[in-house]
Amino acid sequence: MIRFASDYTEGAHPSILSALAETNYEQNPGYGEDTHCAHAAELIREACGTPEAAVHFLVGGTQTNTIVIASILKPYQGALCAESGHINVHETGAVEATGHKVLPLPAVNGKITAAQVQNACEAHIHDASFEHIVQPGLVYISHPTEYGTLYTLEELTALSEVCHRYGLPLFLDGARLGYGLASPETDVTLKDIARLCDVFYIGGTKVGALFGEAVVITAPSLQKDFRYMIKRGGGMLAKGWLLGLQFETLFQNDLYMDLGKHAVTLAYRIRDAFREKGFSFIMESPTNQQFPILTDEQLDKLSSEFSFTLWEKVDETRSAVRFCTSWATKEEQVAQLIEAIKKL
Amino acid sequence: MIRFASDYTEGAHPSILSALAETNYEQNPGYGEDTHCAHAAELIREACGTPEAAVHFLVGGTQTNTIVIASILKPYQGALCAESGHINVHETGAVEATGHKVLPLPAVNGKITAAQVQNACEAHIHDASFEHIVQPGLVYISHPTEYGTLYTLEELTALSEVCHRYGLPLFLDGARLGYGLASPETDVTLKDIARLCDVFYIGGTKVGALFGEAVVITAPSLQKDFRYMIKRGGGMLAKGWLLGLQFETLFQNDLYMDLGKHAVTLAYRIRDAFREKGFSFIMESPTNQQFPILTDEQLDKLSSEFSFTLWEKVDETRSAVRFCTSWATKEEQVAQLIEAIKKL
Amino acid sequence: MIRFASDYTEGAHPSILSALAETNYEQNPGYGEDTHCAHAAELIREACGTPEAAVHFLVGGTQTNTIVIASILKPYQGALCAESGHINVHETGAVEATGHKVLPLPAVNGKITAAQVQNACEAHIHDASFEHIVQPGLVYISHPTEYGTLYTLEELTALSEVCHRYGLPLFLDGARLGYGLASPETDVTLKDIARLCDVFYIGGTKVGALFGEAVVITAPSLQKDFRYMIKRGGGMLAKGWLLGLQFETLFQNDLYMDLGKHAVTLAYRIRDAFREKGFSFIMESPTNQQFPILTDEQLDKLSSEFSFTLWEKVDETRSAVRFCTSWATKEEQVAQLIEAIKKL
Amino acid sequence: MIRFASDYTEGAHPSILSALAETNYEQNPGYGEDTHCAHAAELIREACGTPEAAVHFLVGGTQTNTIVIASILKPYQGALCAESGHINVHETGAVEATGHKVLPLPAVNGKITAAQVQNACEAHIHDASFEHIVQPGLVYISHPTEYGTLYTLEELTALSEVCHRYGLPLFLDGARLGYGLASPETDVTLKDIARLCDVFYIGGTKVGALFGEAVVITAPSLQKDFRYMIKRGGGMLAKGWLLGLQFETLFQNDLYMDLGKHAVTLAYRIRDAFREKGFSFIMESPTNQQFPILTDEQLDKLSSEFSFTLWEKVDETRSAVRFCTSWATKEEQVAQLIEAIKKL
Repeated sequence: MIRFASDYTEGAHPSILSALAETNYEQNPGYGEDTHCAHAAELIREACGTPEAAVHFLVGGTQTNTIVIASILKPYQGALCAESGHINVHETGAVEATGHKVLPLPAVNGKITAAQVQNACEAHIHDASFEHIVQPGLVYISHPTEYGTLYTLEELTALSEVCHRYGLPLFLDGARLGYGLASPETDVTLKDIARLCDVFYIGGTKVGALFGEAVVITAPSLQKDFRYMIKRGGGMLAKGWLLGLQFETLFQNDLYMDLGKHAVTLAYRIRDAFREKGFSFIMESPTNQQFPILTDEQLDKLSSEFSFTLWEKVDETRSAVRFCTSWATKEEQVAQLIEAIKKL
Repeated sequence: MIRFASDYTEGAHPSILSALAETNYEQNPGYGEDTHCAHAAELIREACGTPEAAVHFLVGGTQTNTIVIASILKPYQGALCAESGHINVHETGAVEATGHKVLPLPAVNGKITAAQVQNACEAHIHDASFEHIVQPGLVYISHPTEYGTLYTLEELTALSEVCHRYGLPLFLDGARLGYGLASPETDVTLKDIARLCDVFYIGGTKVGALFGEAVVITAPSLQKDFRYMIKRGGGMLAKGWLLGLQFETLFQNDLYMDLGKHAVTLAYRIRDAFREKGFSFIMESPTNQQFPILTDEQLDKLSSEFSFTLWEKVDETRSAVRFCTSWATKEEQVAQLIEAIKKL
Repeated sequence: MIRFASDYTEGAHPSILSALAETNYEQNPGYGEDTHCAHAAELIREACGTPEAAVHFLVGGTQTNTIVIASILKPYQGALCAESGHINVHETGAVEATGHKVLPLPAVNGKITAAQVQNACEAHIHDASFEHIVQPGLVYISHPTEYGTLYTLEELTALSEVCHRYGLPLFLDGARLGYGLASPETDVTLKDIARLCDVFYIGGTKVGALFGEAVVITAPSLQKDFRYMIKRGGGMLAKGWLLGLQFETLFQNDLYMDLGKHAVTLAYRIRDAFREKGFSFIMESPTNQQFPILTDEQLDKLSSEFSFTLWEKVDETRSAVRFCTSWATKEEQVAQLIEAIKKL
Repeated sequence: MIRFASDYTEGAHPSILSALAETNYEQNPGYGEDTHCAHAAELIREACGTPEAAVHFLVGGTQTNTIVIASILKPYQGALCAESGHINVHETGAVEATGHKVLPLPAVNGKITAAQVQNACEAHIHDASFEHIVQPGLVYISHPTEYGTLYTLEELTALSEVCHRYGLPLFLDGARLGYGLASPETDVTLKDIARLCDVFYIGGTKVGALFGEAVVITAPSLQKDFRYMIKRGGGMLAKGWLLGLQFETLFQNDLYMDLGKHAVTLAYRIRDAFREKGFSFIMESPTNQQFPILTDEQLDKLSSEFSFTLWEKVDETRSAVRFCTSWATKEEQVAQLIEAIKKL
């Protein structure tokens, strides 16, 4: 069984395992106050072009989303996001657990628009009962989205502008950021994201690390006392240098971008194989997740050899499925899948 | 500089790093639903003598305490604990963040007694304003305590009995459990803990793992839907098998106990060196933390070569300090410290 | 200016003011532990036909919804409700403030169906990521709804059955219950509600009281320790007998039903006047709220003499508006409005 | 049975009942946006000498404390207060329910000092683990305290200064403020409180109103969006003018001060009767609560005719008890009590 079900099925890039082994008996202070974290933060600030940004390292995505959002919102505020946004559908109410409502907006291909944000803000301001309604307090987007899609630079710029016009911090969930930055179809760079967002995170768990997400807070007003929030949210790793070490590795020698490119290249091979065979997709994804539509029979056939995710029923006899590649996917695994696709 | 400041200054036992390396390209399902977690849980159930216990793997101590406590308490209930308990003093209000009051009891050497718990329950029941007061909903103890001390079997049995008499689950924080179980001065075994507590955790972070805590829920009524709580609390590691793998390693070939013994043996050498030199201690600790009292001058002298923790001022010119050993402490490091002690 | 904008624009039925005056120097114990509360609870239990129900008196609707919901749900559970439900749209995230997600379902005329609840439960159970999704933990409905509509006995019975099949308590928000029970078009009695719901409240604020809502908990498993929840939620009125006194008055001599009938009768006169004049309505309401559609010009004309609520734009030149009657509406006020309608 | 058990055993001052009756059919907009609230706020601003203060009306004390505190604190902050403070001991964890730890300080006669606040802040700042500890975020005091005691102007000024030096808002719980302001032994005026505190509330429930507390926010930075907090906290009364009306009445013709004086005068008669008879007190209270120490036999004797509160056991055979007077206490009730005291 070869797994294409997710992009977190293997351990870590070998250079990360090496770094762990080499530093194993190094004695480090705890809680992220070590030289590896400091160095990794510096490398990330450089890559982002934001010398004043605060960088923190957390363990996982739900934890990161929750802590960032709770650090920004006032008690009566909520987070605007796509209705398909991870915080709205797949975090067991972690944001609500901190006392905040998620304010979902209808999404197209996992994305929301500047116009939607503006309308939501205007509607709130002009509602006669506005004080009886949760106030929009930030905008959450994911890039790539949960559907593998990407914002264009124009879309992201428009979102950033509208957010700042209404005083809402823009928070970008980059759990799969590496696969977005490496897409041949994107015009958005890491520096663009750092310039346009108030806070975002660079996903490690799905892009070469054992675990770990690097939060970058560019807005000075959101930086104060963030470490208290991490501790309170159960996110302060005792051996914090394990996170610093991993991001130190990922942000040297372009490794993070290279891992992203590897996965996207292989995803495109899978996409092309399905295309050539005449399959359609529920959406065009320019990143490491691909969503072809299979008949039940085709689905069964592929399932005998490969694992992948059932995404949604399209009609009585067909379903959209998701194939994920990652930094760890091997060329031969993809070749084997392509062979099987050809035989469908 | 040799660090005795805490028991989480190094990475992981080499056999854990090996296990990570060997399984790096193994493809595992996420979120702890893999064979390593299943196997580790089985090994732990065996070691505990509790074939029906639920075992879950979390990343860190604050996270574990918070999720366990929030899973047990009703909204109007609080957690009875020693005033020096970790949840009361060093978790930035993580328990309160879930809506619950911590109910501190005066502690002697970090421990509370069955009589205190009984008094607190009786006082609550008989207070005319009882509905205006947070109801005791569970008892939290740490073993070893934050002061390195241990409950005796008699004390633990009495606590368990009084808890069950009043319907309060007994929760034991075992962040340093390995160092407690390995103490030559304890009469409490892992099986005793599993029998007497309703839920407890076996600390990995401080006892040989890179990170990780194994929650053991022996009370059937507390087992339902715990995974929802983990996810909601931001504690569900995407690559959950990394936790399973580490506990699988720790609970084979007696490794967990051996690491505990190693640290305690070395701690006793340090204790004996201070004793022989005539130093007194703020308390007798039978585990890997030792709390001698130094003059400011002695403190300065040792600080030039060793890091350790300033615990509390004892008087104008003397302070209690903490020396920690761990699974990673080397004999030669201890020897070097003992040399320095002798010269004081 | 005559106000038809809401059903809480006047004080209280004169018999309630009299009761307050007569008992003003009576000395009562606080916090609802007085004879008036006990008597009012007894009268309500009789009216409901539920001799074992627990009855509690709270001050307002948002408070009541929040406390009831927080008392029922486990941390990882949410409240299924109509997307137009008051808890979802007009309580500034009070439910989320207790850590719980509101799970909105598309609604028709403010109502949800048993089939929707069943589908939501089945979808949750069968989702591969179910532990990553908030679990449905109760069903919240309002009766009358926020649109003045009513569940039929058949609909309510079906909801009750599906709730109990899936282990979800059914909670009915009866902020305007009197106006529902008094509708000539309903087949649902107070006894039906008490039999079919696990917990509900009888609204006083909008139906003759100065303020106050009577929570009736019929499900024995939901009764325990509810007063702690009230206190914790800031809902325990020091002079609790003020609530008991008001419900004692409302539930004697059929006053509550009479006040309901009075308002609905007058609402029907308004409805008939609009109908006779050829106006259409955005929905048929059998209770004290009526939603005719006016042109901007008609709206302006009526606004000079009457206050009412702009409900929603229907098209470029027309809006639906809401006219409310209440226990306090006077025949001559309605007559004056009808005159104005005739002149439109 | 004559009740001296609390100061909330009767309804409201007759002039408040009259105001309710006279305005019963007045049509008012809801939620505090009416002319009575506006007028009452204006009268309170005048009485306080703070023309820019925001004034809001809430229903009860726990609700007020919780909403005010939750509006001020950041998630990782807590409220410093006396260990006997109402929020710490008698609100069923309402503050914790909003995610915040109460940080109790040892109190003498219910009061804390500027030095204690300074020490707590300094200890936090200089703790090596400060980010692992809840940060002091405000100071809560009650005046009169739960023991009937009062801060002197010097004490209050010192508290205010230290709070502002450390950036902590000072919040004064004035549930019994009228009885403090009216004490012949105080040098603190309402204007002093308004000048020295950042936010405080003027208690109505215990001082002549049916219910109601007037929150005065003098610090401009704490005023924004407070009404959202009220609604979210379940504290926005639908018929908000009922609160405005009561404070409008209390703050005209010196009624609030007169009611305070009445109660304190009668309390002093009780105090003097006990004193003359040679009784001692557990503390000197200059307000409407008096705490004489009785033998069990004396306690039983008085209990047959009067209700009062058992405060605490002093030794095997004696207890401190509390006698409360209020705006409603009648001279003849006190005379009857004094007769009984004389016969002890």
